Amino acid sequence: MQMLDCTAWLRARDGFLLVTHLRPDGDTLGSAAALCLALRRAGKTAWLYPNPEITESYRCYTDALLAPDGFVPETVVSVDLADTNLFPVGFQGNVDLCIDHHPSNTFYAGETLVRPERAACGEIMLELIQALLGSITREEADLLYVAVSTDTGCFLYGNTTADTHRCAAALIDAGADSKALNKQLFRTVSKARLQLEGMVYTGLRSYRHDQINIAVVTLDMMARAGATEDDCNDLASLAGKVAGSKVSVTVRELGPERCKISLRTGAEVNASEVCARFGGGGHAMAAGCEMDCTPDEAAERMLAAINEVWP
Amino acid sequence: MQMLDCTAWLRARDGFLLVTHLRPDGDTLGSAAALCLALRRAGKTAWLYPNPEITESYRCYTDALLAPDGFVPETVVSVDLADTNLFPVGFQGNVDLCIDHHPSNTFYAGETLVRPERAACGEIMLELIQALLGSITREEADLLYVAVSTDTGCFLYGNTTADTHRCAAALIDAGADSKALNKQLFRTVSKARLQLEGMVYTGLRSYRHDQINIAVVTLDMMARAGATEDDCNDLASLAGKVAGSKVSVTVRELGPERCKISLRTGAEVNASEVCARFGGGGHAMAAGCEMDCTPDEAAERMLAAINEVWP
Repeated sequence: MQMLDCTAWLRARDGFLLVTHLRPDGDTLGSAAALCLALRRAGKTAWLYPNPEITESYRCYTDALLAPDGFVPETVVSVDLADTNLFPVGFQGNVDLCIDHHPSNTFYAGETLVRPERAACGEIMLELIQALLGSITREEADLLYVAVSTDTGCFLYGNTTADTHRCAAALIDAGADSKALNKQLFRTVSKARLQLEGMVYTGLRSYRHDQINIAVVTLDMMARAGATEDDCNDLASLAGKVAGSKVSVTVRELGPERCKISLRTGAEVNASEVCARFGGGGHAMAAGCEMDCTPDEAAERMLAAINEVWP
Repeated sequence: MQMLDCTAWLRARDGFLLVTHLRPDGDTLGSAAALCLALRRAGKTAWLYPNPEITESYRCYTDALLAPDGFVPETVVSVDLADTNLFPVGFQGNVDLCIDHHPSNTFYAGETLVRPERAACGEIMLELIQALLGSITREEADLLYVAVSTDTGCFLYGNTTADTHRCAAALIDAGADSKALNKQLFRTVSKARLQLEGMVYTGLRSYRHDQINIAVVTLDMMARAGATEDDCNDLASLAGKVAGSKVSVTVRELGPERCKISLRTGAEVNASEVCARFGGGGHAMAAGCEMDCTPDEAAERMLAAINEVWP
């Protein structure tokens, strides 16, 4: 779908419910909340689906926008939501429009505005809101700055492009308080998170001259750190920080004999192929899977699989 | 000095020596190296002053550009160098032009191009090179990306503006390999450093609802992590990362019954006053002292002193 077709489509409709994805992050929440405000500015009724997994740190951006009980939507729009298996807990029904930046988008919605070259859904949303209304408010700019900065690790990750920086400049020009948001989102860490990171670093398992690094996060570690799900953002990036690391594995214990594994690789190993062996999948450089075993066993299985495809 | 006056000034001269500051960082080195290459493109002779303090991680950008023995400059340009007390080790003489972004610049040079609203000297340099030559090469763009990204903590620090992001976009458009540079500059940490950070985080001592945080770094921790002095940069900033922290103390064991203490505070506590009690000193928000005692005793003495001045 083209951007201008999308604005015409939105103008012709009303009664919007905006749906964010499972385990919602800053991009899905910030983008959906900004669109919600913009649609209201355009004279529409618009609410966010009350995603039950919104974590403490994002609630301030979404609480006032959650659909009240009994709201019956006329138009359902999903944001940053690549596939129906990422529908938020409790959500059922058809999606009329999907706005997304994932290359893996499955075109499950009636209409799809997908821009896979964009680092964050927030970048697409800035363009869409400007096309729809010719301007962006300070509050919308704050929300889109949350979206873009969190999805790029504050312009650090490899997905960041020149367009991402242009988007950030436009948002700051529009009044986004990047200084306060950066401090809140990136410079302050909960005591529990810091404790958990500490345990991950001291427990790091390194192989082949630090080229392979495996981090294990057990439920016991979570309990000792006093960590909640809110403290677990982007744990999968920690093991790869070691100088010389080519392949990093993060094993998270979900329950008894149940683990979630994240794999990050360079050109040497196809992460998606390795995870496919265990029924998972993803991208060439970032993939995941789940296993019915202890964290130690999961770590051993991943190491064996990596050693096999990369002797 | 205006930008166009500066380009005319540079065009009229030759035999350039570009001087970086004491304890050189990415901004002074990247900006000076980019200017050096640009001046050569303009047909000039240009070299960097062989600053003896260039650290390992920046040598790859500067090694080939250091002035050979016996080079006699006709024109001396300082870059990112606010005052003569920041002249690099071994440098003497007059500076003909200073290009800087520090509000504290003392106008010690014959001419001064200062832009205090710029987050990094690299931003000024991009404008200057484009004004001088109408273009920027990929190599110059890489160097200026190093300059701008390091001075803003990869667009995280409070000095980052919309213009900083526009500068980054222009550099990436010009071919700067931001992906590789981000990985090298911000995403890679020595295994020993990561281990040491892990021990600091897990051993953090927090008081008064996490408002006071004390980190202890013993020689035993250093040995267990395999850490050298190179792995100890900015250890004093770790304890202050805890959400809600107002006062942070870092105790480093130097030898038997010998400790070095760093104190960082907010408005609540005058760090210099507290450290003066133990024969040390510094600034209101960052000060230090040494003590003849064990790390545990040093931590206790500091906590008692803080509790006394901030009941």
